[in-house]
Amino acid sequence: MRSEESLDLRPYLREKKAIVDRTLEAHFPVAEGPASDLIDAMKYSLFAGGKRLRPILCLAGAEAVGGTETDVLPAACALELIHTYSLIHDDLPLMDDDDLRRGKPTCHKIFGEAVALLAGDGLLTESFNLMTAPELVERVSPHLIFKVIALISKAAGYRGMVGGQVVDIQSEGKAVDLSVVEFMHTHKTGALISASVASGAILAGGDKSELEAITSYGQKIGLAFQISDDILDIEGDSMTMGKESGSDEQKGKITYPAVIGLSKAKQVQSELVEASIESLRAFDHRAEPLRQIARYIIERRK
Amino acid sequence: MRSEESLDLRPYLREKKAIVDRTLEAHFPVAEGPASDLIDAMKYSLFAGGKRLRPILCLAGAEAVGGTETDVLPAACALELIHTYSLIHDDLPLMDDDDLRRGKPTCHKIFGEAVALLAGDGLLTESFNLMTAPELVERVSPHLIFKVIALISKAAGYRGMVGGQVVDIQSEGKAVDLSVVEFMHTHKTGALISASVASGAILAGGDKSELEAITSYGQKIGLAFQISDDILDIEGDSMTMGKESGSDEQKGKITYPAVIGLSKAKQVQSELVEASIESLRAFDHRAEPLRQIARYIIERRK
Repeated sequence: MRSEESLDLRPYLREKKAIVDRTLEAHFPVAEGPASDLIDAMKYSLFAGGKRLRPILCLAGAEAVGGTETDVLPAACALELIHTYSLIHDDLPLMDDDDLRRGKPTCHKIFGEAVALLAGDGLLTESFNLMTAPELVERVSPHLIFKVIALISKAAGYRGMVGGQVVDIQSEGKAVDLSVVEFMHTHKTGALISASVASGAILAGGDKSELEAITSYGQKIGLAFQISDDILDIEGDSMTMGKESGSDEQKGKITYPAVIGLSKAKQVQSELVEASIESLRAFDHRAEPLRQIARYIIERRK
Repeated sequence: MRSEESLDLRPYLREKKAIVDRTLEAHFPVAEGPASDLIDAMKYSLFAGGKRLRPILCLAGAEAVGGTETDVLPAACALELIHTYSLIHDDLPLMDDDDLRRGKPTCHKIFGEAVALLAGDGLLTESFNLMTAPELVERVSPHLIFKVIALISKAAGYRGMVGGQVVDIQSEGKAVDLSVVEFMHTHKTGALISASVASGAILAGGDKSELEAITSYGQKIGLAFQISDDILDIEGDSMTMGKESGSDEQKGKITYPAVIGLSKAKQVQSELVEASIESLRAFDHRAEPLRQIARYIIERRK
């Protein structure tokens, strides 16, 4: 169901990214004192060129139910801290052992493994500090904030992202069936993406049916996004992506294309995106950014 | 100021530890599904024989201002999750590279480095889930819970424990002055210990002067506790401690005894304990567990 409204997604993403970047920059102090390397390492990875997809989904989720970004901005930024910590830990030699991320040296290549590990720990911990920021606590009903902290901590933790990462690591080089790939993808990437859009809608006061629809949308684009990552790893251009293409296959990573083939993976991805847009059928033009972001998942080149 | 009340600390610690253990056991599911190793690893370290000092301080902090343990139990347990995560990450080869902790193989020796890293991440994330547990949210005023989440995330993160750990790692083998050792100790260990006792008092509704006194107490015993760790590393019995004594010196760790000498370190530790007890002078017998715990810091053998 393509909306009649036309929204040019690129300026929307640019504008929201700028708001998120400004808020993140204002949140962290100038690095000084005995632990200044830690602050530098946290900021290095936080400002290494992320698309800010999770914060933008949070803002767009709020917008879809009639909220404004000022209601949810600290929570949106908290999601980026969590995403960044997960990348730093993922890149460590004891995990994926990646030297490059978005075309730049990974955190541990610059700051060493110990500081990188701790920078990840620091970002994860600070994300929950942001979720109790005065700007949020003074604006939003407490039980909604508790609901969001519970949701995000579940989605990011052992029942979500961290659980998916364990399966990712442990399945390397093994023959696994589709159910394991699906568990891995829905947990490793899908859970936090889905929680991002749902958090925005919760904090902005979305009602039960709105939250159900938004959650359904989030789960579908979360899985579609990870499948799209898998596809980009095969088809993508190393220059555009900022990392070597084909690295999943080299590492024996389990991916959708590896298990069901590239063309079937593309079909599943398209179906998920269409179904995600269908989940939003009861929403008006204010959900147009969410619809466009769903389409963007298929079209993105990095 | 020794109180006239006599409290036998040992049964007190045993009783509170049992309550914390039961709550922690009930919180985590039986390990099953694709990510079962992760759950096993989290539980392995969580039930590896910790003294539950931080949760007990939280319960005793609540008690001191007239609260009950049921008011604060989820937050008390959250503190143990944070402490356990920090030990798992600290023991990793890329950090302190320890094979033994409390006489048992460290998490990564059993589950591998990647799963251990993720078990730490999972415990840290889950701690904030516990801080929004229904038992807490239904009993305690929201702004007190927000205050505690803000306090703990600050004390555990880059402005506290994680900041102290960076300085610990980066100072190894270097000549540093007392101010760096003090920064390291107050941040690495002191911040979370102080936040533990303060959290209990906050959630139990302590007033401003009570919270100031409790915070002062917590800061002093936090530093005393780390100095006591340093002293035990030199004087302790390997069997009792469950790790090799003298390992700090071997690793070139910065410690109080290394910088100011053993006898001066013992003097500082005693003075801190006495001052911490003095901080509680306005409290009645309900602060007796806190007073006794302060004395226990000097007397403990592991």
